[in-house]
Amino acid sequence: MSMMQCRRFLKGEQNMRVSDIETPAVIIDQDVVERNLQTWQKYCNRHGIANRPHIKTHKLLELARLQLRLGAVGITCQKLGEAEVMAQVADDILVTYNVVGQAKLQRLVDLARQIRLSVTADHPTVVHGLSEAMQKESRPLPVLVECDTGLGRCGVQTPVEALDLAKQIADSQGLQFGGLMTYPTSIPKGTDFMNEVVRLITQAGLSVPVVSGGGTPQMWDAHKAEVFTEHRAGTYIYHDRYTVEKGAARLDDCALRVVATVVSRPTAHRAILDAGSKALSSDLLGLSGHGVIVGFPQASIVRMSEEHGVVESPGAPLTWEIGQRLQIIPNHVCVVSNLFDQVHAIRQNRVEEIWNVAARGRLQ
Amino acid sequence: MSMMQCRRFLKGEQNMRVSDIETPAVIIDQDVVERNLQTWQKYCNRHGIANRPHIKTHKLLELARLQLRLGAVGITCQKLGEAEVMAQVADDILVTYNVVGQAKLQRLVDLARQIRLSVTADHPTVVHGLSEAMQKESRPLPVLVECDTGLGRCGVQTPVEALDLAKQIADSQGLQFGGLMTYPTSIPKGTDFMNEVVRLITQAGLSVPVVSGGGTPQMWDAHKAEVFTEHRAGTYIYHDRYTVEKGAARLDDCALRVVATVVSRPTAHRAILDAGSKALSSDLLGLSGHGVIVGFPQASIVRMSEEHGVVESPGAPLTWEIGQRLQIIPNHVCVVSNLFDQVHAIRQNRVEEIWNVAARGRLQ
Repeated sequence: MSMMQCRRFLKGEQNMRVSDIETPAVIIDQDVVERNLQTWQKYCNRHGIANRPHIKTHKLLELARLQLRLGAVGITCQKLGEAEVMAQVADDILVTYNVVGQAKLQRLVDLARQIRLSVTADHPTVVHGLSEAMQKESRPLPVLVECDTGLGRCGVQTPVEALDLAKQIADSQGLQFGGLMTYPTSIPKGTDFMNEVVRLITQAGLSVPVVSGGGTPQMWDAHKAEVFTEHRAGTYIYHDRYTVEKGAARLDDCALRVVATVVSRPTAHRAILDAGSKALSSDLLGLSGHGVIVGFPQASIVRMSEEHGVVESPGAPLTWEIGQRLQIIPNHVCVVSNLFDQVHAIRQNRVEEIWNVAARGRLQ
Repeated sequence: MSMMQCRRFLKGEQNMRVSDIETPAVIIDQDVVERNLQTWQKYCNRHGIANRPHIKTHKLLELARLQLRLGAVGITCQKLGEAEVMAQVADDILVTYNVVGQAKLQRLVDLARQIRLSVTADHPTVVHGLSEAMQKESRPLPVLVECDTGLGRCGVQTPVEALDLAKQIADSQGLQFGGLMTYPTSIPKGTDFMNEVVRLITQAGLSVPVVSGGGTPQMWDAHKAEVFTEHRAGTYIYHDRYTVEKGAARLDDCALRVVATVVSRPTAHRAILDAGSKALSSDLLGLSGHGVIVGFPQASIVRMSEEHGVVESPGAPLTWEIGQRLQIIPNHVCVVSNLFDQVHAIRQNRVEEIWNVAARGRLQ
């Protein structure tokens, strides 16, 4: 079924069902999404944690809107390009990224005039660029200091560096010190680091309005990391094989699945799916095989080409025939969202809506 | 620089240079592309091999057109959705895939009315579906038998199975036996297999119009695999770190690069780029690290998040400052094309055109 046919279905000519969708395709179970969002929002409310979900996982206007309606204080974007899209539905966006270069800084200024934008920085050069861009603006830009509490990615390396950068931000025209940010929240290493930074900054006479942590695997321990005032979870909306392996969810909390078709049965123990690395991505995240094939625990996608998933079942022969449809829970759901232009929002087996992945490919 | 600004540049208001492109972005060196295409076409001409390039690597109308103009007999697509897009510029397309299911078969019939379409099949069920769909068409659909000559993906497993399927195709209404196909061309295993199939089919009174091999790593040995009449190479248009490692090209034959910016310098030995797995993909193809950073052999992208590339230089400290721009030759270029909506076609340092990646995301 082509997209054009899909739209006809949705206009009520017929009821479109999951079995009508042409594969490979993404389905989103809205009941599961709503349960995931509500459960986490309740947890945040109970523990007084501000919920600022990361939209990189879904990149959908529809679900950002839902997250906000259920109680999120704002959203998180990784790239400015994502924030520009999400500004259609969100008026409070934190971009957890060093915004660098004249063209991006001009876009940042434009966006900061439209919504309550905040960003992170981890270096005096970044703060300097932000201040130069923002200096003539009437409303100062909140800038949070990104701290590397063990991941080894961005972030200042020591609490003293964090203090120095906070002071620089507070002293910079067009900016205000917005607090602290790290990813992911880790206990006790991350909390020890952040406690020390808060102590130093408070001692220096500045207040720390926000301490922002993040990550889905550790989300249910967020309340133990008392120094944090807000949490940025992304994957929690859909969950995936990785967050299940990490104990943050069960398999039936996984809301996104890739629907695929068996297109070849070369041997009794091998089947080929029409979903390869251009549908599932090749992210392994330390797991073995590419996703969980729902209902077939003995079968595994052992390797992929771009448009082929190679399934092997070393034990019993596979009974699938050519044309059989399967559903796959991906290893890493965030990269799958970025490979599809559209996703199918379902309830039970009915396709209710087709959503454009509005922020897909917004890398810049 | 936003896309809108880019277009203004291209309209001649200013000359756009590579240093003006907002990152992360893809640049395509047209001089290198033309050299790669011409060299391979000359090789094919010299050896009497029909050149049927695979467009999955670039997914661009502009480059499919160029491949055909330089002498390709037609093009190859992996998915029907790619072929539907490419039909704008190509009138001879081989889809090297089992086309399965009513919706896709209807699309196949529609496409076969517009262009000279051919497809592959590796199972009686697939042939049966094709015949049912094509039976009322005036022009028969050429169907090639896919043979598994060692990859362990799709394809019949034995020469006798290939013979049986060829006979079924020849006897099927709406179809004609189009020849044989395998991927990749391997010597001697693949040639032994294909020679045996040709012998069996010829003995049975059928002619084998095409024997189609493929792959870039082995392309320069294609003339040694005498049984093959045509070759489907994809990556050869751009090359990448993998095909260089395999000896099919040198680094300066790599026509596609990802331009990235250093956005963070957390330590003397670590830098963070604004290109992560959503720009470079996480395909390793057995290599260590994620691409070659041009001009900096001592630095390596050791790991990636979705929007961060983590560069480490274990020997000498990195001298890069925040804002510095780098160019990366990806491990696997075909999946990178699929992550960008647009690419920048350059000569020397000038951006000549911005091309839409027309067949990006055409998974179905």
